[in-house]
Amino acid sequence: MKQTLLLAAIALAAVSVNAQVVEDFKPATTNQEGKQYPMVNSQRMVRAQISAPEATSVKLDIGGVKYDMVKDENGVWTGESAPQDEGFHYYQLNIDGASVPDPGSKYYYGASRWGSGIDIPAADEDFYTVKNVPQGSVNEVYYYSTVTEKMRHCYIYLPAAYRENPDKKFPVLYLQHGMGENETGWSAQGKTGIIMDNLIAAGKAVPFIIVMDNGLNARPANMPEGQPAFGMGPRPQGGQPGQGRPQGGAPGQGGQRRPRGGFGGFGGFNAFQDVLLKDIIPMVEKNYRVIADTEHRAMAGLSMGGMQTRSITMANPTTFAYVGMFSGGTFRAEDLKDAADFKKTNKVLFMSCGGKENMGVDKAAEDLKAIGINAYSYVSPETAHEWQTWRRSLYQFAQLIFK
Amino acid sequence: MKQTLLLAAIALAAVSVNAQVVEDFKPATTNQEGKQYPMVNSQRMVRAQISAPEATSVKLDIGGVKYDMVKDENGVWTGESAPQDEGFHYYQLNIDGASVPDPGSKYYYGASRWGSGIDIPAADEDFYTVKNVPQGSVNEVYYYSTVTEKMRHCYIYLPAAYRENPDKKFPVLYLQHGMGENETGWSAQGKTGIIMDNLIAAGKAVPFIIVMDNGLNARPANMPEGQPAFGMGPRPQGGQPGQGRPQGGAPGQGGQRRPRGGFGGFGGFNAFQDVLLKDIIPMVEKNYRVIADTEHRAMAGLSMGGMQTRSITMANPTTFAYVGMFSGGTFRAEDLKDAADFKKTNKVLFMSCGGKENMGVDKAAEDLKAIGINAYSYVSPETAHEWQTWRRSLYQFAQLIFK
Repeated sequence: MKQTLLLAAIALAAVSVNAQVVEDFKPATTNQEGKQYPMVNSQRMVRAQISAPEATSVKLDIGGVKYDMVKDENGVWTGESAPQDEGFHYYQLNIDGASVPDPGSKYYYGASRWGSGIDIPAADEDFYTVKNVPQGSVNEVYYYSTVTEKMRHCYIYLPAAYRENPDKKFPVLYLQHGMGENETGWSAQGKTGIIMDNLIAAGKAVPFIIVMDNGLNARPANMPEGQPAFGMGPRPQGGQPGQGRPQGGAPGQGGQRRPRGGFGGFGGFNAFQDVLLKDIIPMVEKNYRVIADTEHRAMAGLSMGGMQTRSITMANPTTFAYVGMFSGGTFRAEDLKDAADFKKTNKVLFMSCGGKENMGVDKAAEDLKAIGINAYSYVSPETAHEWQTWRRSLYQFAQLIFK
Repeated sequence: MKQTLLLAAIALAAVSVNAQVVEDFKPATTNQEGKQYPMVNSQRMVRAQISAPEATSVKLDIGGVKYDMVKDENGVWTGESAPQDEGFHYYQLNIDGASVPDPGSKYYYGASRWGSGIDIPAADEDFYTVKNVPQGSVNEVYYYSTVTEKMRHCYIYLPAAYRENPDKKFPVLYLQHGMGENETGWSAQGKTGIIMDNLIAAGKAVPFIIVMDNGLNARPANMPEGQPAFGMGPRPQGGQPGQGRPQGGAPGQGGQRRPRGGFGGFGGFNAFQDVLLKDIIPMVEKNYRVIADTEHRAMAGLSMGGMQTRSITMANPTTFAYVGMFSGGTFRAEDLKDAADFKKTNKVLFMSCGGKENMGVDKAAEDLKAIGINAYSYVSPETAHEWQTWRRSLYQFAQLIFK
């Protein structure tokens, strides 16, 4: 009886959703070439479609909800989601219990897997749209790590000016992804290169290099696989209280992908500090035309990458002059008020989050200003713990640094 | 009755295959981080696995054959393929009639879709394994095309020497993918950057730049969508007889992914010639330190890209000094014997194919040598019309050029 009522309620809900669907669906910009589905309409609903003639149940799994799809006489299943936020979302299909990528979408690394992603058109998408402006490049690079004793892999954005001015040296931003993501995220989902080329062409940002590396696979060669690498690892000077989780916000901060302990299984949340300082920065400063001083070095990251940024910049206060923390909690004034080196070195401390998160970035920035830090906050309108928040955060942060 | 016999035959075949399976399966190198399946054993059989509790039929679809998988009591399906050739293969899963990517693998663009790929260990895999040698980089670049009046997208390999010698200029190879593939293929499946870094470090190849662009989406801005763009397009000088299909080989040449007409639907098989000559080469010679003359310019491609190479280099005989055609058929001596400019300009003409293809490259090279062309042939042992053939072809070709 209970089940019947529930089913009836679901059926009613489905009817009521369908009654409101505006039939102006268009293929998503994140689709594979020539693929019609998935589509998005002006209500920001996602419509998926897949041929599965022998299946008994197919669902569209997006935003934490599984939406039933409906089979037609040809065995083709179609279904819509509720309206989604503007910007990028990971999703998948579920076919008779198997969770699989949608063959219509391009694939992205997030939620600890390569899988489907979809971009919902946004009012401000112009800032991350490819335009005929001077183009930099995103360079795929392998390098040897003395810490992990393995070859590692990263992406390096070089602005057009790097190529055009062969004698000039440039500042560098080290930019980190979130939990369950990797070094491909900032370029693919984040659209880093496109955002920067547009900003620089518009004169809103100065040209700088951006290094996007993997913040999770930094397990030192001398650390056994089973041992958690969480904490500051072998570097004792970084033991700030509370590091490794977002701070300073109201309850509920951090959103759905906020790390819940257990970083160690990935080979080191803060083991990354060692790789960054001993391998990545030296490699970049050796191989590229870089102004290798504190005032021309920035670090930022999203979610877990923001937390890494906080702990690494606090533990190494004279290494980076610009610091950005996107959806990673906040810096607390009480932790920085006596941090003389940090306060003397830091030129910009930027904290952001989505409007649907509640991380207290505005209040935190006020508190930090009160102790003499040049703090900024930014809240991305109507977005959650997702890439649209972070694209916008990069867009804001990039305009503040190296000026 | 017929069906029962067929099912019995299949069951027997399955038993007979299983009886021979060597249980030394290991996760494929092309798997997503942390994913155990798919696996490969020493017999080069692929074992796939997926949880699909409600499914009634799950198949592993590889090498043109769909292998039935078997469900266990937890709803997890497992199954093996017959032994595969060494090297890279596209594949997919089929769940109750739906063809989908395997959530365990990384994804590659081929067969006109982003989907699963698997690398079967090869005796010679050392040449495409990442090593701690001086590393070049593969650069993702957008640029404006005057032909298509759109932004285009390509990848450019720069050797380590490009970075290390900031005043030096370098030769360039323009390297094209096959039908159903795109500009990502040579770097991802082909492992171009890794092969080149290893070759250069070993002193077997001179450092040169490689440009990998899209040979299929080159439809000119003034050509309507519906109109086939096949043939030489607006450039009349290139009308060699028989262009656009492999020539000179025995029956059966070309393998399973050999293009079968209809290039036009993709916006121009040879419309690409215009984009190459008017957009790509000028962009590369403007933005990179390039020796911009015939003797330092090469073109090569695989399958359709090899055919494009043949037609473009024959139509523009003084543009490229080095020419490579991998699994794309052959150049015919009768077409080149009176081609004075081509013969005077060409320094190496390389033709290759897989040992399981039959493209007559050895005979063709002999015929070309007889008319005074410095022709080379290469047959990749025990491989078909697939990426292992082309990795090996690049490895061979790269050692012959710009010397």
